[in-house]
Amino acid sequence: MSKSKPSSKKSAAPEEVKSRKPAPMKTHEKKKGKAEDADSMAKRQREISVSEFFAKNRHLLGFDNPKKALLTAVKEAVDNSLDACEEAHILPEIEVKLERLSAPIVEAAPENEKDAKEGKDSKKRKGPVPTERYRLTITDNGPGIVATQIPKIFAKLLYGSKFHRLKMSRGQQGIGISAAGMYGQMTTGKPMRITSKLPKKDKAHFTELQIDTKKNTPDVLSEKDVDWKFKSPSGTSVEITLEGRYQRGRQSIDEFILQNTLSNPHGHFRFIDVDNQVFDYPRKTKELPEVPSEIKPHPYGVELGRFHQMAAETTARSLKTFLSNDFSRVSDKVASEILSTAGVKDVPASKITPHHLNKVHEAIPKVSIMSPPTDCIVPIGEELIMNTLKQHSKADFYTAVSRSPAVYRGNPFMVECALAYGGDLSGEEPMTVFRFANRVPLQFQPAACATFRVLTKLDWKKYGLNQPRNSLPVGPIAILIHVASVWVPFTSESKEAIADYPEIKQEIRLAVLECARQLSLHVNRAYRAAEAERKANYIDTYIPFIGEALQEMLKLSDSQKDKVVSTLRNTLERSKIDGD
Amino acid sequence: MSKSKPSSKKSAAPEEVKSRKPAPMKTHEKKKGKAEDADSMAKRQREISVSEFFAKNRHLLGFDNPKKALLTAVKEAVDNSLDACEEAHILPEIEVKLERLSAPIVEAAPENEKDAKEGKDSKKRKGPVPTERYRLTITDNGPGIVATQIPKIFAKLLYGSKFHRLKMSRGQQGIGISAAGMYGQMTTGKPMRITSKLPKKDKAHFTELQIDTKKNTPDVLSEKDVDWKFKSPSGTSVEITLEGRYQRGRQSIDEFILQNTLSNPHGHFRFIDVDNQVFDYPRKTKELPEVPSEIKPHPYGVELGRFHQMAAETTARSLKTFLSNDFSRVSDKVASEILSTAGVKDVPASKITPHHLNKVHEAIPKVSIMSPPTDCIVPIGEELIMNTLKQHSKADFYTAVSRSPAVYRGNPFMVECALAYGGDLSGEEPMTVFRFANRVPLQFQPAACATFRVLTKLDWKKYGLNQPRNSLPVGPIAILIHVASVWVPFTSESKEAIADYPEIKQEIRLAVLECARQLSLHVNRAYRAAEAERKANYIDTYIPFIGEALQEMLKLSDSQKDKVVSTLRNTLERSKIDGD
Repeated sequence: MSKSKPSSKKSAAPEEVKSRKPAPMKTHEKKKGKAEDADSMAKRQREISVSEFFAKNRHLLGFDNPKKALLTAVKEAVDNSLDACEEAHILPEIEVKLERLSAPIVEAAPENEKDAKEGKDSKKRKGPVPTERYRLTITDNGPGIVATQIPKIFAKLLYGSKFHRLKMSRGQQGIGISAAGMYGQMTTGKPMRITSKLPKKDKAHFTELQIDTKKNTPDVLSEKDVDWKFKSPSGTSVEITLEGRYQRGRQSIDEFILQNTLSNPHGHFRFIDVDNQVFDYPRKTKELPEVPSEIKPHPYGVELGRFHQMAAETTARSLKTFLSNDFSRVSDKVASEILSTAGVKDVPASKITPHHLNKVHEAIPKVSIMSPPTDCIVPIGEELIMNTLKQHSKADFYTAVSRSPAVYRGNPFMVECALAYGGDLSGEEPMTVFRFANRVPLQFQPAACATFRVLTKLDWKKYGLNQPRNSLPVGPIAILIHVASVWVPFTSESKEAIADYPEIKQEIRLAVLECARQLSLHVNRAYRAAEAERKANYIDTYIPFIGEALQEMLKLSDSQKDKVVSTLRNTLERSKIDGD
Repeated sequence: MSKSKPSSKKSAAPEEVKSRKPAPMKTHEKKKGKAEDADSMAKRQREISVSEFFAKNRHLLGFDNPKKALLTAVKEAVDNSLDACEEAHILPEIEVKLERLSAPIVEAAPENEKDAKEGKDSKKRKGPVPTERYRLTITDNGPGIVATQIPKIFAKLLYGSKFHRLKMSRGQQGIGISAAGMYGQMTTGKPMRITSKLPKKDKAHFTELQIDTKKNTPDVLSEKDVDWKFKSPSGTSVEITLEGRYQRGRQSIDEFILQNTLSNPHGHFRFIDVDNQVFDYPRKTKELPEVPSEIKPHPYGVELGRFHQMAAETTARSLKTFLSNDFSRVSDKVASEILSTAGVKDVPASKITPHHLNKVHEAIPKVSIMSPPTDCIVPIGEELIMNTLKQHSKADFYTAVSRSPAVYRGNPFMVECALAYGGDLSGEEPMTVFRFANRVPLQFQPAACATFRVLTKLDWKKYGLNQPRNSLPVGPIAILIHVASVWVPFTSESKEAIADYPEIKQEIRLAVLECARQLSLHVNRAYRAAEAERKANYIDTYIPFIGEALQEMLKLSDSQKDKVVSTLRNTLERSKIDGD
């Protein structure tokens, strides 16, 4: 931008135009780009910081619009709190407080087609859409955060403890909470305010923080020791001021917290909304879920590039101990088998060459290696996911299944599925789908999710549901799918949809089919009844015409006609049912 | 990983198990994570390089699976070549050459339901799915690249010339081609090989490159001057060896190149496939498309955070000249109006405080500012997009529209739409949707795209099409949508789907509605004809039963029955058509 010349001072007039549509260019403003060459292009090349990148592409992180931004900020903070409590073996107690700092903006979207056709705004305005400001405070009773770590954890993208390990957790990227702070800063100019208390200290540590987006580094504005205002012996409180829009209902904070209570029955959640109303969800159990353990990478899932990198970083003393130390399920015996299959002799670590590594990597798929351990994954459980569906609506039929763990690219994962059918569920709408990943409810981008791809590819017609090609079936059916893994692959950094890995899709498919099979008999009966009724309707439609036609043709009296019609109706109904 | 202890040598037995499912854990292997505290967590915190992040999340960049990875690599290289040629005002000549380096792998997926249910593999194997290797070479006649820039352009993520400017181009992030090279390196260990020739030099420059993913920096393995083997006075040739899978048909390289010839009729494309077959697409016109110009950011689209940043970097001498120099459509007069609305006096640049900036930013929406210039966007054109649909299939009806430009978050953009109906298009399938962004065909993630959200929300029933709620209509209809902008917001780094901005969706909606209105009359007629036929079918179904029933009731002879039936049929058909 800085290279551009000052805009012409001659062009004073056009500013008066109030149209929202860009006006046609004045001729003297038309400067077509001149041809570039390699030198001129080289001068414009430069590095882009990861913060700049995500500031411009903030929708990738879930900050698409004010409503979703608010929810994403809550989600990132709650995910972190739950993870921290779980790792410290603390029963989580999480409070989400939302304060509105500006008057709510009431603006109807151009909902009716006529307005939309004409591109009309419902309200005349000069500039961009006005916005609302909120203060969001999320407080947990977790283990607290060491003061020196606070700046980087909250004001540096791609910084964290969860990226480099293989363990089931909600956070995994080291982006989320810093992105929420960055969004607040970009939209309101206000810094993030963190208060964190360690159990062994009397005072809590308070930090006011901004992110330098040009460099992706934290700027500490102020720091001090303060009193900890909460009852817990330790914990962290995060305050973000941001643009947003708060609405109840679908894809709301309320819904997110409600769904979290279902997937985390050991958590105590409290939401204080903009009207200072308190929604309290006490925990349903004092039992912590099993704590997932960390695993090492499995040889089958490690690509050549990563294999070379691991070898460069190993602390093992030799090629063989590199294999047996740094990988899951590689014993001495397996390591020897790999080396002999590769035709490579064991060498000290310092003597490992790229050639050795290529040979060894090529040999790995040829050796039988046990699948990775699966205690790194903790299911929600069949009963609990079925309860989630029961909470949603009253159906005639419920079923659920937790599959046993499987592996994709060396990463253990498992799929759980619950299904509800009939009852209060609408028969006119496409299937309702609830999605969870590592216990986190997924509220956006359903159509981009692997679950959607599986559900639309299955043949639902055999269960008596309508299904246009490549679409969800239409009928009174709801499905819940939970994917748990040491590394859930998402379609974007905002973690809204599960990416399209064949192994994961296959397990989702098998889970859904297992539920569908349970449903099959029930639905087939209902389908046959519906078909019979549909046919009866055809008969009702045509009989009157037939009656009149016959009366005219055969000169019947009205009573004769009525008799013929009723006999006809009986005959036809019988013929249809028998002939079926 | 390096912290983990060597895996127990006692556990030698389990490796013999050949099951693909993870076996249950042996008791001695069950080590549940121990409770962490703030100190132990702090020790695990660390920085994640952007290359590490994308290497692990490579599906975000379009490298989900071998087939798609191959196509993404082609796409990134071709996009760059077209951009470079366009900026240098050169008629592009692009050759894509694909060589298979390993035998093709034939492996049927478990397609039938029974196998899938049982989780059967179609082929027994020990390790991960075997892969194929390819060498991909993309050569253009562009302006070439300065030798010192080659390492960073091809082996550093988030480096480039297109991110920091507002101009319509195919590339915009500085990620794509480095990511393709990184994927090749990760999967085959082979470096990327770049040959680039500048017009003024006799020799071309050859560079062999790898990316250091830990640091996101290039490693130059070798460099030398070489002969340029092509006829063009300048150009660049990129060679990547990578894992992939080459298939013809939908979402293939073939399709990508074919669609590119349609959106870039001034380009000469050549594809040499694995069998050395040459597909040559000569250019259809020698006229270069209008070259889009670069614009400055529009005040309405600049958020507070970015506004502060721009002020910190400005070369202007005062607050007022900062506004008039660094923004689009801000004349002296408008700058004065903004300052007076803000109640702020002009100050020298060195005296600008955050308070000033906040006040000024708050005032901007209250001042009328002309929409940004739109010569930064170049449409494909109604005729051309209609031709694309004609190339796809023979329909009864075509229509197209290029909307005038609009603005989202200060960024000019425009939408074009073409529609085809009837003819050879299948009536049994959901609408076919072709999508382009800045002339680049989008082949993946249709359901995640803003276009999908618009198309599924429109009421297609009035055009005689079936439409389940929240789904695409079913019927003989195809639609093409092109979104052009100085900054197209995508749902992920792989640039496969357009993100959900309300202004963009609204323009897509209006474009589609304009086409749909053209179609309306035509379709209504067709719909009525189809309805009549459907009713005739009902009659055919029931007449035989009626005939038999009447024969029995009225003791008719066969010939009497036939006569009654034929009279009935006529009467009914007339009654249905009249009654309609």
